[in-house]
Amino acid sequence: MEETAIAMVFEKEASPFVVQKFNFPELNEGEVLVKTEFATICTSDLHTYYGRRTSPCHSILGHEIIGHVDKIAANGVKDFAGNLLKEGDRVTWAVYAHDAESEMSKKGFPQKSESLYKYGHQKIDGNCQLNGGFASHCHLLKGSSIFKIPANLSAEEAAPLNCTHATIAGAIRIAGNLKGKTVLVSGAGMLGLSACTMAKECGANTVLVADIQQARMEMALSFGAEYFLNENEFITTKSKEFKGEIDVIIETSGQPKAIENTLEKLTTGGIIILVGAVFPQRNISINAEQIVRKLLTIKGLHNYIPEDLKNAIQFLSKSKDKYPFKNLVGKTFPLNQLDAAFAEGNIGKHYRIGIETKSLITNKSKTNGIERD
Amino acid sequence: MEETAIAMVFEKEASPFVVQKFNFPELNEGEVLVKTEFATICTSDLHTYYGRRTSPCHSILGHEIIGHVDKIAANGVKDFAGNLLKEGDRVTWAVYAHDAESEMSKKGFPQKSESLYKYGHQKIDGNCQLNGGFASHCHLLKGSSIFKIPANLSAEEAAPLNCTHATIAGAIRIAGNLKGKTVLVSGAGMLGLSACTMAKECGANTVLVADIQQARMEMALSFGAEYFLNENEFITTKSKEFKGEIDVIIETSGQPKAIENTLEKLTTGGIIILVGAVFPQRNISINAEQIVRKLLTIKGLHNYIPEDLKNAIQFLSKSKDKYPFKNLVGKTFPLNQLDAAFAEGNIGKHYRIGIETKSLITNKSKTNGIERD
Repeated sequence: MEETAIAMVFEKEASPFVVQKFNFPELNEGEVLVKTEFATICTSDLHTYYGRRTSPCHSILGHEIIGHVDKIAANGVKDFAGNLLKEGDRVTWAVYAHDAESEMSKKGFPQKSESLYKYGHQKIDGNCQLNGGFASHCHLLKGSSIFKIPANLSAEEAAPLNCTHATIAGAIRIAGNLKGKTVLVSGAGMLGLSACTMAKECGANTVLVADIQQARMEMALSFGAEYFLNENEFITTKSKEFKGEIDVIIETSGQPKAIENTLEKLTTGGIIILVGAVFPQRNISINAEQIVRKLLTIKGLHNYIPEDLKNAIQFLSKSKDKYPFKNLVGKTFPLNQLDAAFAEGNIGKHYRIGIETKSLITNKSKTNGIERD
Repeated sequence: MEETAIAMVFEKEASPFVVQKFNFPELNEGEVLVKTEFATICTSDLHTYYGRRTSPCHSILGHEIIGHVDKIAANGVKDFAGNLLKEGDRVTWAVYAHDAESEMSKKGFPQKSESLYKYGHQKIDGNCQLNGGFASHCHLLKGSSIFKIPANLSAEEAAPLNCTHATIAGAIRIAGNLKGKTVLVSGAGMLGLSACTMAKECGANTVLVADIQQARMEMALSFGAEYFLNENEFITTKSKEFKGEIDVIIETSGQPKAIENTLEKLTTGGIIILVGAVFPQRNISINAEQIVRKLLTIKGLHNYIPEDLKNAIQFLSKSKDKYPFKNLVGKTFPLNQLDAAFAEGNIGKHYRIGIETKSLITNKSKTNGIERD
């Protein structure tokens, strides 16, 4: 019986991943060992690998992961719904393990809990070994929020759940009731497409999209958006100009200029949720008098709470056939071709690159029909 | 029987107010004529009079007003609690009349209602005559939210209710539950003092105050604040440094620099309410990545909803003996000395200047013990 895991270790910026073997961990109370099935390369993985943000190494990158429960701590471990996990269960989990009794958790911000442990982000040491998605196994610590994956979701659909879709579910939660509202999604990458669909499914009357790339906005039209930005006007594909007012903005690009420009488009009482600005950048320049007179709200969201992942799973399972989520993984590589996968991802042609972790050694990569831009 | 009102009309920037007589209006459905008792000069009145902001003229300034019901439309008019008003009732009212069926009202922003009618801010014309506080009478239109004033409140205490205290009640409402929180009040003018007391009475654990003037911060220590800003540290009068984290900021100064500086002091998950930035100003420069990573919220509030005035009245009636509100009107002038009253107000020595509207012609002004700085 296999008692050794294999991981592709990130040792240094832009240098080849290194294959490394790890003994299976002893499982303490509340812990689970998952045999990973599939992972996707998140944009933040690319930023880390190519040195556009600092992250500890040696480490195992990859946090958009799904897998099957392989081993469970002696006294059993429950999923988020409170049911005991069984060997073979197909699961996703929140990108962090947290202490529910910590002060930040009690304040409603478990994602900022003291001593937070983030998958795909930690330095490998004695207590943290199989931590990321680009490995055969992942070791889930106590305080991880684990969810069974509905049977109707493919690996390509399910892998981005615990980052992209859960973050957007969080953004939608703090944006408040969207019923009948007009929602502008700024940035039409993976987060933006998720935001278009989720806003629409949460009752938004109209969804508009803005991006600097025409092709990405056109893609958003398949994901619930109705109007896209043409210079300074929102138009439909039939050149019908948008006449209404914008109640809510979900800002996923993180670009200061986009934040400044979209904020000006908000109607009185409007709200903008910032989720994209997670990289070093210049300050934004905004007018406080306008914020006051127009009763505007600006909210930042980083990561999400476990309930958001729960809602994201329900959302995707229910609406997966209405939008072409299954096409967003543009190309899939086996784990041992992770270098090539990152190189491909960094070109930016695909929304996501998939990593098939169950087949460690193969020479084949698969290409999907859809391209990002 | 007197059927003529007298008003001090604002005709031109910084030029003497002009005494003008008005016939009593015919009262249409829902309308009330109030005999004004007392008004206070709000900072925005000073800004208008001295040309620091534009406002239509000829007009009657003054919106912090109280008075007694003098005449009521034929079929009766109800106060906000739903009780029929009677002649002689001592009342305050929201600074605006609004249409509850308008789109903005239904969205929860009656203060931005279409065709809003604001007391003390409208040009005198056929439909709008006795509109402001610096007059013997005020003509309340349908859609005004009218409240009886509790018997324990003096005129000096009650006049600022429908501007200062109601605005702060709105700020506290949108700041959410303050129980156990640490609240920083930025700006220790009239709004700031109100914010210190209301935050404390709403359960804040600690209230801190920041202002560029030492004397104003010291005054705030009598209004519920415990620490004040000394260069970059919050200290008590005993030089004990503040060690905690700031959960909530009520920003009343409106100064871009103050907004920028205080925002940086917010803890993760913190919220800043902007209420002071109601004058033309430079943009603020803030970092969106910090807003995201620290899950911050920025909210603007302009004016308030009628429920806020209701809460402000209850608050003041209950806590008036715990804080020296009665001393905040530093000097009182009779209505016919309005020019002198504005000149005195513009010096900035007093939190408020009072106008005794019931005594139209007298030569006496009264001085209170308290000074602003």
